[in-house]
Amino acid sequence: MRATVIHGPNDIRVEEVPDPVIQHPTDAVVRVVNACICGSDLWAYRGVAARVAGQRIGHEFLGIVEETGSEVRDFRRGDFVVAPFVWSDGTCDYCREGLQTSCPHGGFWGQVGSDGGQGEAVRVPFADGTLVQLPKEAASDEKLLPGLLALSDVMATGHHAAVTAGVRPGATVAVVGDGAVGLCGVLAAHRLGAGRIIALGRHQARTDIARKFGATDVVAARGEEAVEAVRELTGGQGAHAVLEAVGTEESMRTAISIARDGGAVGYVGVPHGGSAGVDIGQMFGRNVSLRGGVAPARAYIPELLPDVLSGAIDPGLVFDRTVGLEGVPDGYRAMDDRSALKVRIAF
Amino acid sequence: MRATVIHGPNDIRVEEVPDPVIQHPTDAVVRVVNACICGSDLWAYRGVAARVAGQRIGHEFLGIVEETGSEVRDFRRGDFVVAPFVWSDGTCDYCREGLQTSCPHGGFWGQVGSDGGQGEAVRVPFADGTLVQLPKEAASDEKLLPGLLALSDVMATGHHAAVTAGVRPGATVAVVGDGAVGLCGVLAAHRLGAGRIIALGRHQARTDIARKFGATDVVAARGEEAVEAVRELTGGQGAHAVLEAVGTEESMRTAISIARDGGAVGYVGVPHGGSAGVDIGQMFGRNVSLRGGVAPARAYIPELLPDVLSGAIDPGLVFDRTVGLEGVPDGYRAMDDRSALKVRIAF
Repeated sequence: MRATVIHGPNDIRVEEVPDPVIQHPTDAVVRVVNACICGSDLWAYRGVAARVAGQRIGHEFLGIVEETGSEVRDFRRGDFVVAPFVWSDGTCDYCREGLQTSCPHGGFWGQVGSDGGQGEAVRVPFADGTLVQLPKEAASDEKLLPGLLALSDVMATGHHAAVTAGVRPGATVAVVGDGAVGLCGVLAAHRLGAGRIIALGRHQARTDIARKFGATDVVAARGEEAVEAVRELTGGQGAHAVLEAVGTEESMRTAISIARDGGAVGYVGVPHGGSAGVDIGQMFGRNVSLRGGVAPARAYIPELLPDVLSGAIDPGLVFDRTVGLEGVPDGYRAMDDRSALKVRIAF
Repeated sequence: MRATVIHGPNDIRVEEVPDPVIQHPTDAVVRVVNACICGSDLWAYRGVAARVAGQRIGHEFLGIVEETGSEVRDFRRGDFVVAPFVWSDGTCDYCREGLQTSCPHGGFWGQVGSDGGQGEAVRVPFADGTLVQLPKEAASDEKLLPGLLALSDVMATGHHAAVTAGVRPGATVAVVGDGAVGLCGVLAAHRLGAGRIIALGRHQARTDIARKFGATDVVAARGEEAVEAVRELTGGQGAHAVLEAVGTEESMRTAISIARDGGAVGYVGVPHGGSAGVDIGQMFGRNVSLRGGVAPARAYIPELLPDVLSGAIDPGLVFDRTVGLEGVPDGYRAMDDRSALKVRIAF
């Protein structure tokens, strides 16, 4: 089959690789229908996150089950499924508690020895613990596919930011970052009943989506200027809940600074600034909490799915370009130079 | 009157100072019955926390109301009261929400221009918002006084650590630090129904108190060794709730490392290690939350007071030495060289 492989910084290729086969009785093989490129894939693309030359890449996909191992009970050939960005056994303490990202048998698509989502097919370990069933008819519904695809990571991650930041009905929320995760954070906060949502972002095409998703205010600034603006919008107090969806030192500093005393930052941007942006002295004096982390998408998909199917939310709006598999390298370039927000791959 | 004054590092004196007088109609003047020395006072004593020469010191006291301003409604001459370590107006958004430490009109006993708790009397701003009424007969009850005194800071702070760490009935809890706050954290976790409480500390006299307060396990180690020991005690997972009651880089690093995935660190040790101990990469991957800060004692005292009065908890056991006012400099020396755990000042 053909799949996307990363050979080094700025070196993404689509190549022939071995077809996936069932290796364990709990495996399934899924033929990919839709996949996409994640902002976090760019860390590898840019050489910031290390990868072994030849590693697969991509961790978000929808597909049709092609084959199942002898112990797979919940899925059969022909089922349409979404995969969260981490696989998990579904039976350990953490899986049962809804923190599948901490499953001791879990793993991340594209890690050495596994398939990536940006390929024609994927071997899925622990299919029963990992995959979520979708309505079969949705597999050919071009209106629904983008929203369903967003559940594999970006919408679940935005939701995790909102949940961990403690968004409640009526709350004032601020979202740092206008990437696809930040935008989904806006949508998640709106879905959870936030009274006011301040989106921080400087790219109008993106903040326009933020407004569609429920943002009531946009702050087109960064750093101190953004902090001032949010304080001014909130009577000097800041936001009850801040969603941090970037992962740099500056974005974390901004997020903590715009949190209201006693409030929380829910951070989901993969940290690339160490702890330098975490001003523990400021957090201590103002009782600002820092929560979040890698989102247990598997736990959230069942909650979010009905709202995508009903059209109550459409996180698929974050996709502004669609390519075929052979167009994936172009997709990386477009996301890297910010000419695309998020690229969908249709097989 | 006589009061404790800090002139510089290791230079604590008891001196004649002006008697406090009502300055605002919301003030009260309280004659101190009991006060104490806090572990955080040692940061000033050691010159780590800056003080202006001649500043008062001490922020924990019980006393009898001597005089009230014309707008004070809830207190009158002769009332026996406890003061939380921060004063607050009682009417702002934060005070109404129970985060009195963020009151814009609030302040800290001993800050420049205010009286400190380690003196014969104190002018109390916003008496109605700040003070909590105690039963008059308790003022002469030597059995009750230490426990009531602990409510002004150390017990309320231990409780804040437990609450922000998310201690729930049955939870596995670890407490970093065997100072008075850490010990009160053990007591608070026990009171909240923790199933298992692992106290980290290397001073047996202190860990003996921890056991009295409900600790089920003691780990007499630090750093990596302590992390290993807690992991071993918890089947490799760590503690659901970790109370950090030291405030150094190492203690924060330990606290985060021994938290179970998805768990929380409630930190109340005044941070003196910057953010270096906050390993954001580890927190992210394991969804460990960092909560806590300066404890809103004023919010907690009404909840904790009945249990002290009934004898259900006795946080007063953290006091292992009592001095008179003139003995305060000796008290600092004893706490600094760790020959005393916490020193009470009886007037």
